[in-house]
Amino acid sequence: MQLVQTTRDALLKPLSTVAGIVERRNTLPILANILLRKEGNKVAFIATDLEVQITTHAEFGVGAENEATTVAARKLLDILRALPESGEVRLGLAGAKLSVQSGKSRFALQTLGAAEFPTLSQPEKWDVSFSLPQKTLKHLFNMVHFAMAQQDIRYYLNGLLFVFEPGRVRAVATDGHRLAHSGTEAEGIENRQEVIVPRKTVLEMQRLLGDSDDPVAIDVAPGQIRFRFGEVELVSKLVEGKFPDFTRVIPTNYTRHFSVSREALQGSLQRAAILTTDKLKGVRLQLGENLLRISSSNAEQEEAQEELDIDYAHEALDVGFNVSYLLDVLGNVKTETVNWSVQPDVNASALITLPEDDQFKYVVMPMRI
Amino acid sequence: MQLVQTTRDALLKPLSTVAGIVERRNTLPILANILLRKEGNKVAFIATDLEVQITTHAEFGVGAENEATTVAARKLLDILRALPESGEVRLGLAGAKLSVQSGKSRFALQTLGAAEFPTLSQPEKWDVSFSLPQKTLKHLFNMVHFAMAQQDIRYYLNGLLFVFEPGRVRAVATDGHRLAHSGTEAEGIENRQEVIVPRKTVLEMQRLLGDSDDPVAIDVAPGQIRFRFGEVELVSKLVEGKFPDFTRVIPTNYTRHFSVSREALQGSLQRAAILTTDKLKGVRLQLGENLLRISSSNAEQEEAQEELDIDYAHEALDVGFNVSYLLDVLGNVKTETVNWSVQPDVNASALITLPEDDQFKYVVMPMRI
Repeated sequence: MQLVQTTRDALLKPLSTVAGIVERRNTLPILANILLRKEGNKVAFIATDLEVQITTHAEFGVGAENEATTVAARKLLDILRALPESGEVRLGLAGAKLSVQSGKSRFALQTLGAAEFPTLSQPEKWDVSFSLPQKTLKHLFNMVHFAMAQQDIRYYLNGLLFVFEPGRVRAVATDGHRLAHSGTEAEGIENRQEVIVPRKTVLEMQRLLGDSDDPVAIDVAPGQIRFRFGEVELVSKLVEGKFPDFTRVIPTNYTRHFSVSREALQGSLQRAAILTTDKLKGVRLQLGENLLRISSSNAEQEEAQEELDIDYAHEALDVGFNVSYLLDVLGNVKTETVNWSVQPDVNASALITLPEDDQFKYVVMPMRI
Repeated sequence: MQLVQTTRDALLKPLSTVAGIVERRNTLPILANILLRKEGNKVAFIATDLEVQITTHAEFGVGAENEATTVAARKLLDILRALPESGEVRLGLAGAKLSVQSGKSRFALQTLGAAEFPTLSQPEKWDVSFSLPQKTLKHLFNMVHFAMAQQDIRYYLNGLLFVFEPGRVRAVATDGHRLAHSGTEAEGIENRQEVIVPRKTVLEMQRLLGDSDDPVAIDVAPGQIRFRFGEVELVSKLVEGKFPDFTRVIPTNYTRHFSVSREALQGSLQRAAILTTDKLKGVRLQLGENLLRISSSNAEQEEAQEELDIDYAHEALDVGFNVSYLLDVLGNVKTETVNWSVQPDVNASALITLPEDDQFKYVVMPMRI
C-alpha cells in the first residue's frame, strides 16, 4: 500500500525537523522510531524522547486512506540524505515493512506498530497563551542558553526559567556561577507564572526557530509547554523544582562602570586563557585609571598579560574570573561594545550589560586566583 | 635578548609547518616543544616525535648572534593564532623564558635547553637519491594511503611500501584485506630498493605537499628517508620488517571486466551500507547480463537493493565485499568511471583499475555474507 510520493528534498524536510530529538540510545526500542500518520493526503511526522515531542506535517500522502506506522528515524534520514537530491521517492507499507523506492534503489525498513508509540497527552486547557515573533523568541534563547547548567544534580538548573508576566516575558539561566537574564515585551499574558524549560527543549527550539517575524504560539499548562510555529508543533514537559531567585542574584547597586570593545576583550581573554591551568581557567582583571589589565599564569609559571584602554575613572580593583564564563557571553552577544559594572569589593560579582538592550543582564561571580 | 621580529602571519607559517607532528601526550616533556635555532637572520624551526623530524627556516632573525631554545609548540601556536592577523610579533629570550610580544599583549613561555632536544642524526651517505614533482609524490600517497593498516600488530602494515627501481617508483599499502598500488616514472634511481614509510610520515607528507611541479628531493639510507621541498626538510625513520609480496596479491589472470560510473556506484554503496550490520558491513554484489545488483541486509531483516546498468556480458556472479573497502577507494580516486575485473570464483579477489592510469591497482578480498 502506497503512503507517500514526493521528491527526496520534500520528504527530507519534515523528517529533519522532527528527527533531531531522537536519541541514539534508547531503553525503549520504539523511541528510535518516528511515527508517520497519514490522513488522506496529509502526513504527520512525530518524534519523541518522552520529554519532548515534535510534530510536523506535509501534504504528499497518496490516496484517501488513513494509515499509521513507525520506522527508525536515523536510518530513514540516512537513506534519504544519500539519495540523489532531485530524485522522486515513494514510501509504502508491505506487511510489517516500510518500503522506500527511488529510481533503481529499494529499501525495506522494519516497522513497529503505531499504537505502541508513546505520544504526550496534551491538557484540555492552557493557563497561559500568547505569541511572539520567531526571531524574538530565538533571540531570548540565544541570549541566555549558554548559562544553563549541564547535568547538574540540581536538576532545575539544567534548563531555562521562563517568567511570564503582564506585558513581558523573561528568560533566565544559571549554573550557580553565572546568570544570564534577557526579556522582551509580550502581549496577552494575564497572570504571572514561572516555568523551567528543559535544556534539550531550548537547544532544539534554537535549531528550529527562524529569523522571521512569523509568530510562535506559546501555551503553558501545569507540567507542559507547547510551541507552535509554521508547520511545527513542539510539546515539552517542564522541569519541576524551585529556580533560584534571580532578582536577588542581580545586584542593582553598582556605581562603577566602563565600556569596552567586545572583540578586543574577547581576543585578549582568548589569549590569556591559553596560559591558565586547565581546570580552573582563572584570569586576573586589574582595573586602573583608563586601563584594564588582564593576566594569567599556569602551573609552569608561564604568563600572559594583556592591556586594554578603557574609560574607567574609579579606584583600582583587582579581581579574578573564570575566563570561560566571560568568553561564553562575549561569544554569544553581537554588540560592538559591552558595559561592565563592578563594585569595589573583590568578592562582589560583576555585571555585564549591553548598550541598546536594557533587558540583558549577565552576572558573573569572581573567583580567587 | 631579541630573537625574531616579523608579522604574526610570517611567524605562524613555519610554526604550522612543523608543529603537526608534535604529539599531545609525550613521555619526554621536551617532545611537546619545538626547537628554535637562530643563526644570524636565519631561524630554523624543528619538531620531532623521535620517529619523524620536520625542519623549516625563515629569515626574520634579529641581530647577528646565534641562539637556540625550545618552547611548547601547541601554546606558541595557539597564542599566534589568537593574535590579530596583521600584527607585528617579537620573540625574545629573558632568562629561561621566551617572551612573545605583540601590540599590548605579552607572554612569557617556559623554555627547555636546546641541547636536550633530540634531533635525528642523519647518515653520512644516502643510497638512493632522486626527485619527483610535489604533485606527483602527493598523488602517489593519495592513491594508496587509505589502504594502510592502523595499529595492526603486524606493524609493517602500518605504513606504505616504497619500491624504488630504475625508471620507476611504486607505492603500495595493504591491511591484509585490500591492497592499493600506484606508480610513477622516476629518473635517477640506480638500484632496486624497498622501504616501508611509517603511516604518520605519509599522512604528514600529504598535509605538507603542494600541487605544484616544484621538486621534492628524496633520499634513502638504511633505516631513514628524507624529503626536502621548498623550505621544508622531513626526515623519518623507516619501518623494519618484511612487507607482503604485492606481486603475488595482484592477480593478472582476470578475464571478465566491466566499467561503471564512480559516482553512481559510490551512491549505491553508501545507501546499501546503511542497512548492513555494524561490524561486518557486508554488501552483496550480483553480476548479471549488463546489470550490477547491490544488496545488503542487517540483523533486523531490513534490506537495501540497488541496480546499476553496466557493460557486463559474462556469466552471472554473486559475491560479497566489505563495503568500507569499496567506499575507501571510490572516495579517494577522482576518475569519472572505474574498471572492475572479476574471476568466476566467489573466493577470488576483485581488481579495481582506472582508465588512463595503468599504474593504479586496487585488490579487494571478498567476504562471505
